[in-house]
Formats: sequence, C-alpha cells, structure tokens
Amino acid sequence: MNTQPARGMRDFLPEDVRRRQYVIGVIADVYQRYGFEPLETPAAENIETLMGKYGEEGDRLIFRILKRGEEGRTGEADLALRYDLTVPLARVVAEYRATLPKFFKRYQVQPVWRADRPQKGRFREFYQCDVDAIGSRSMVVEAELLGAANDVLVRLGFSNFAIRLNHRRVLTGMLESVGVSSAQHGAALIALDKLDKIGRDGVAAELTERSIAEGAATVLLDFFSSVSEAQHAADRDPAAFNSEVLARLSALVAEHAEGARALTELRDIVTLCGEGGASARIRVNPSLARGLSYYTGSIFEIAVSDLAGSLGGGGRYDNLIGMFLGEDVPACGISLGLERILVVMAERKMFPPSLVGTPADVMVTIWNGNRVADALQLANELRASGLRVDLYPEADKLGKQFKYASARGVPFVAVVGDDEAARGEVSVKSLTTGEQVSITRPDAAGFIRAGLESRAGVIDGGTQVPPSDRR
Amino acid sequence: MNTQPARGMRDFLPEDVRRRQYVIGVIADVYQRYGFEPLETPAAENIETLMGKYGEEGDRLIFRILKRGEEGRTGEADLALRYDLTVPLARVVAEYRATLPKFFKRYQVQPVWRADRPQKGRFREFYQCDVDAIGSRSMVVEAELLGAANDVLVRLGFSNFAIRLNHRRVLTGMLESVGVSSAQHGAALIALDKLDKIGRDGVAAELTERSIAEGAATVLLDFFSSVSEAQHAADRDPAAFNSEVLARLSALVAEHAEGARALTELRDIVTLCGEGGASARIRVNPSLARGLSYYTGSIFEIAVSDLAGSLGGGGRYDNLIGMFLGEDVPACGISLGLERILVVMAERKMFPPSLVGTPADVMVTIWNGNRVADALQLANELRASGLRVDLYPEADKLGKQFKYASARGVPFVAVVGDDEAARGEVSVKSLTTGEQVSITRPDAAGFIRAGLESRAGVIDGGTQVPPSDRR
Repeated sequence: MNTQPARGMRDFLPEDVRRRQYVIGVIADVYQRYGFEPLETPAAENIETLMGKYGEEGDRLIFRILKRGEEGRTGEADLALRYDLTVPLARVVAEYRATLPKFFKRYQVQPVWRADRPQKGRFREFYQCDVDAIGSRSMVVEAELLGAANDVLVRLGFSNFAIRLNHRRVLTGMLESVGVSSAQHGAALIALDKLDKIGRDGVAAELTERSIAEGAATVLLDFFSSVSEAQHAADRDPAAFNSEVLARLSALVAEHAEGARALTELRDIVTLCGEGGASARIRVNPSLARGLSYYTGSIFEIAVSDLAGSLGGGGRYDNLIGMFLGEDVPACGISLGLERILVVMAERKMFPPSLVGTPADVMVTIWNGNRVADALQLANELRASGLRVDLYPEADKLGKQFKYASARGVPFVAVVGDDEAARGEVSVKSLTTGEQVSITRPDAAGFIRAGLESRAGVIDGGTQVPPSDRR
Repeated sequence: MNTQPARGMRDFLPEDVRRRQYVIGVIADVYQRYGFEPLETPAAENIETLMGKYGEEGDRLIFRILKRGEEGRTGEADLALRYDLTVPLARVVAEYRATLPKFFKRYQVQPVWRADRPQKGRFREFYQCDVDAIGSRSMVVEAELLGAANDVLVRLGFSNFAIRLNHRRVLTGMLESVGVSSAQHGAALIALDKLDKIGRDGVAAELTERSIAEGAATVLLDFFSSVSEAQHAADRDPAAFNSEVLARLSALVAEHAEGARALTELRDIVTLCGEGGASARIRVNPSLARGLSYYTGSIFEIAVSDLAGSLGGGGRYDNLIGMFLGEDVPACGISLGLERILVVMAERKMFPPSLVGTPADVMVTIWNGNRVADALQLANELRASGLRVDLYPEADKLGKQFKYASARGVPFVAVVGDDEAARGEVSVKSLTTGEQVSITRPDAAGFIRAGLESRAGVIDGGTQVPPSDRR
C-alpha cells in the first residue's frame, strides 16, 4: 500500500513542525505588536466564491470538492479548496462589516491549495502568510506594514535584504508623461525591467520592436540607466539614493497631476519609514511593477541580495475588497513567502538549535520495575518547573536508555537508582559534556536549566543521530 | 452575492482565533513537557488511503476532491479531505518507520472534514486534538497520557472532572466468566450502561429480552449495582473507591486468565497515576465501553460532572497502526474534544480576558498631520519593549480616536501633542480607570505594563463595544 503523502503535499515530522512553528510564532508576535489581529477562514469555500476570481489559469488550478449524497454521483462540485487568503478576506470584510473595526488590520497564516504541477520548491499545499490593513488611505499604513515585515525578517536573522518600493500611479504617470499609450505600458515595463540583464542597447531594441516611439524610449532609457548607476551607491547612503531617485522621478512626472500626487505618496512612505527599523532597507525602485495585477498604489517587494526571487511582496489595492461588498474599500497588504523563508533559513542554518533541535530537555530513565514510581514522580517534578521531559516508558538496560536519549539529541538524562532513591537524590548526566552529578531532587531542575542555557550559547546543533539506533 | 462561509464551516474572527490559540497553546505546552512532539499531515490524502477505513457510514461522509485536468471531466475523485488524525498517523508511522524514534510520541492539532448534516455544535470542518504514544506496551504510557490530559484541563481552569478508566479485556473477561457468549457482549454492555438511567429492573428486562441467561444477568446486575452504589463515596475517597472496585472485579475475573492479566494492567494504571496530578480524578468504571470499536486494552473518558458527554477519551489500540505497516505496533492515545472545550470555556467565561479580550495593549493617536512621525516613533519604541501597539492610521479628531480605542477595548491610549513633543513627553490615559499622566517617553512602556498587570487582576472583560461606533 502507498504510504506517501499525496502528490505535491508534505508530511511535517516533528523537527519540521518545530521550525515552522518557530517562524510562524515570530511572525504572529511581531504582527500583534503592530496591532494586527489573527483571522482564520475555512479550508473550503463555496465554489462560486472562488471561481472567476483568479483568471482562467487560476480557475483551472482550483481543487474542487464533489457534492455529497445522491447529487455527488453527477460528478458536480459545490465546494473548492482555498486558493489564496485575499478572496476569503474580501468575503469576510463584506460579511462582518458591521462588527469589524473601521480599520481592520488582520494577519492570516494558513495553507492554500493549488493543482499546479509539483516541482522543486513548488507544492500543491503550501502556507501563505498575509497581512493587510483595510479602511485607510493613509501612507502610515504602508510605513507600518513595511516596518512590521522588516522586524519579522530581522528577528528571524535576515540582515542582507532590501525593501524595493514603487507606486503604480507613478509608473503610469511616468509612461504617460513621455507619451507611451496605455496599451503599451505593460510591454514598456517588461522591457525596462530587463535593463540590468540585457543592457541599454538590448532594451532599446526591445522598445523599438514593441513600437514605443523613439523619443519616449530615449527619455525612459536615460532615466532608468541613471537610476541603475546610482544603485551602486544605494547601500552606502540609502537616504541620499532615495532622495536622488525621487528628485529624478519628480522631474519626469511634474506635469502629470496624477503622477505628481502619487509621487507625494511615495515620498511620504520613504519619510515615514525613516522612523522605523526598515529605514535603511528602503530602496525606491522605479522599475518595480509587481505583475501589473490588482495594485492601484504603492507596491513593494523584499529582496535578499544573493537570492533569486523575493521573500515577500505586496502593495495597495483599493478596488479588490469591493468585489464582494459592491463598494470600494481602501486596502494595503504584504504577503511573506513563508515556504521560501523556511527553505532559506534551513539552507543557511538560521534556526536556533536549542528551540527546534531537540524533542525534550531531559529524559528520565526507568532503573527497574520497582523504581517506575520514582521515575514518574521525578518526571512530574521536572515538568512542574517548566522543563520538557521525556520518560523512557519501560524498564530496560540503562545503557540502551542512554543510547536512545543520545540518538534523539536529548541533552540530559536523569536516573533514580536504588542508591539515589535511598539518599533522596537523582543522578543527572549531560550527554553533551559527559559531566554527571548526583544532586537532591529539588535541585535537579535548576541544574538542568543552567546546563541548557550555557549549552544554547555554545553548540549549534543537537547530537547527531546514528541511523543504526533507529528502528 | 453570498458572503457566508460554506455550510457547516466557520470563519474565526480575531477574538475567536485568540481563544483557540490560547487553548491550543496550553495543550501544546503541556504535551511538550511530557515529551510529545508535534506532527502535521496534509489536508488531503490519496483517496484510497482513507476509503474503507471508517466503515460504510464514514466512507459516505468523506469529502472527495475531483481529479484535475481532462480526467476531471469524468467526475472522478483521486483525493479526499482528512477525516480524522489516526489514519494519517498510521500512514506516517509506516512511511517513516526507519527515521522515527522507537517510541514515537506525537501530538497533532489540525482540522478534519466530515460531510455530516450540520447542527448545533456539529461542524463540517472542526479541529481534532490527538495525542498518541506508539511502540510500548507499558502502562507507563497510560499514566503519562492521563497525567498530561489532566494537566491540560487543570491549566485551562477545569476542576470538577473525572477520568473514567476501564479495560476492554477486563470487560471481555467479566462477560465470559459469567457465561455471556461473545456474540452477546455488545448487547449486554449497552443494557448495563443504562443502569443509572433505567434502574435495575429496567436493565434486567432488557438483558432478558436480549437472551442473556438469568444466572449471568443476576451476577452482572449485582456487581454493577454495587459499583453504582459505591460511586457516591468516590469523590470523598477516590483511592478507596478504586481499590474496592478493583477488588470486586478481581473476584469476578479471577478464574479467567486473560481477564485477570488485564485487571493487573488496570491496577497498574491506577497505581502509576497515583504519582501524578490525575491521581484524585481517576475512577475505575467497569461499565465504560467506548463504542466497542478498535480498542484492545485500556479505555478512558474525561467527564465533567455537570456536563453531558465528555471532554475527551481514548485508549489502547494495538492493531490499528498496523493497517498500513502490515505488522502490529502497540499504540495508545487520547483525543481531547477541542471544540467542546472551547464551547464550555466560553459559556463558563474561563478565558483570561487580558490574553484574549483586546486587540492591543495601547493605541497611539495621531495628534495632527505634523505629528505623524512622532506617533510612529512612539509606537515603535513601545513595540520594542514588547507591547502590542495599535497606531491610529490617520490624523483625525482626538475624541474620535479615543472613542475608537475604547470601542475596541484597548485599555490605554497614548498622545504626543505639540506640548508633549516640546517636553519630550507623552500623555498616557487609562481607558479603564480614566487616569491620565504625562511622562517621559522612555518611561511610557513601564507605566503601561504596570497598568496592564494590575488590570489583569481586577476586571474580567474588555470595555463593551457600542455597536453605533462600528462601521
């Protein structure tokens, strides 16, 4: 019988879960500090809630659930698995509008399902981690979202990342100012985005091929080339870089009322981010386009310098929430790439080993059949002090019990033998240092805790597990 | 457009999620202290993994997912939504046998889906919370499972509950000893279970009706009546009650080798539980049968005295894990009724209001358009100290901002006006006591934290929300 998980889906064994819970815990803690509240929606939605919301390709990738009972025989589906966290949010905002606060700030970390062809790093069940603020057009929202995302990544140990920032209506204003027609905006942006890859001449050829007028093409190429050159100095003095890019953008869109207004918003975001930890990481990036999808204002993306792709992205989408409400509601959000973050953290060994590496802080052995009660008592005493305590479940050779603890990476083993019991003591052995002491029962927890704390600072991984000792 | 969640499924708004996370957090913390490790499996399994595992009725209630692509047009399903957490556990044990520890102790808190007819308290998506220990036949496992379940409920604030304990092979031994044939065991147990409801004569009539011989019926009725009478004294002296019931059982099954061996196990569990917190709550309950399903040894159930139904239950099932492995593996587990626990805790107001009642500890207001940066700075300072800080996103009338904070139950509001800014201070107002002070920025976090701590001890709920102030 096939015992693998379904294609493209994953079992998370204990160490995987501890890693995931650690990252999700940091995310939740930071977002709560920023006043965001948790939301959870059902895995399945009525099929009409989802169909038609993600384009033709999206519709095809939605997992559909058969109707139950007699009707099920027709092969008809009435439910579908959650495809993202944005459509459920829009539904929730419409449904509970009367009870939700005026400014609804929610985070949501839940799995979504897509019937994609599975490949390396792409799964059919994966977690999304969305944070959105509904109800305000203020750029304070952007500053808070970027500040929180920055704090999450810093807390997780990322340092070498940049937050790319742009504005959809600045993009539009810029292209319209130089005379590119709306129909050509997408083509122009796709070409300009390749500047770093194929060079100025390559992009020029592509702009011509896409029928962008030569005059417009030259202005755009001059602008983007100069920004691209300035980029080298961005890390040394981000504030100066951002000011310069904003000034150049201002020259481009000064005559375009809508573009100039949008540029003010962009400038406000940069200024407001100056008050938080994200400050040094903000990079105004005039070619950032974020797929030209439903964004209507600011757009942003988090990039790690030596990593292809991004760790997250988002922007302002003032028309999307209205799809269920029938009325536009301002909204802005960012989605962190949880699965990506987990992969990078594993590759770079960024997980604190003391938190995720061991199944328990100490294992209590069972000396023999007559000492089971002592072992249970000791285990409960240690637990009462907050330690994670495994208890070997059976009387067995002591050597075998020690080997079991060692193989699982448990750092301490405690023994109450006949001698220890007579003295009211317990033997505690550190499996990392080999040190063994006999101490009074009330002192055992403190001893182990002190050992764990010094250990957390010293070693960077649990004891290795010899495969031979696994059944 | 319909914006409700799908039939029988629920949206969890922020306060719901906080309640659920609080309970799940306590469960996870306690189980980790007992050396159990977290496991997570995919929401969808290959359909053949689930079908045929839950009986005919179960098969009908499984949500099936349509094949994608061309094949999907046939209406054929190849995946199904997780129906419980036990079959996925069995699959995982079989799949990862070589890497899992010999004694695999896992907890798993995840949703399951059943196409039941929705009704009060019964949902199509609901969480299960399973804890199982695989690999040992020792009764230490039972003692640890019951100790942990007891600790969870005590930590959550339950006090008035009992842990009913029985053993499937003691039941069998007892019935066989008095001459009830195997085929009649189920019928006899169903009748005897009604003793408290329909009385001795009622049960006697039912036993006769079900063709149980009069001699056997009399022995059983004498035994169960005497246990039922002893029950009144159980709370006063549980140890004496359990000893007496065990002695009476011993008299019944003494001549039945298998039953006598099983009784030793039952006695061992009672003794071993004597070392932990569950001790006073254990009640040997000879009529407990737990549906006669896949249990092969100990069985248990957690009952709250003034509540119909149970808060959890479980037992030993030494043959179930083998359904994927093709080899029997000893296993014992307990399932806590998470949804039930949540309902009871809400009805009885058992949630700590400071943990789950408020979206933030303090809200920072925006004095006017020129003071936005000060507000952001202050918010970030307070966050750095660990406080949960909401920031009103826009410059607005101060009264409106205060009202907003109050309506949402945020206990403190902080203001940096022009005067405060000039002095390097901040005004902090408690919305619960009305007290307002102006203090230096570095002292603000400490002041709020002290207020939160005294508040946690004093009031039992957030400020009430006037619906008029909600949009």
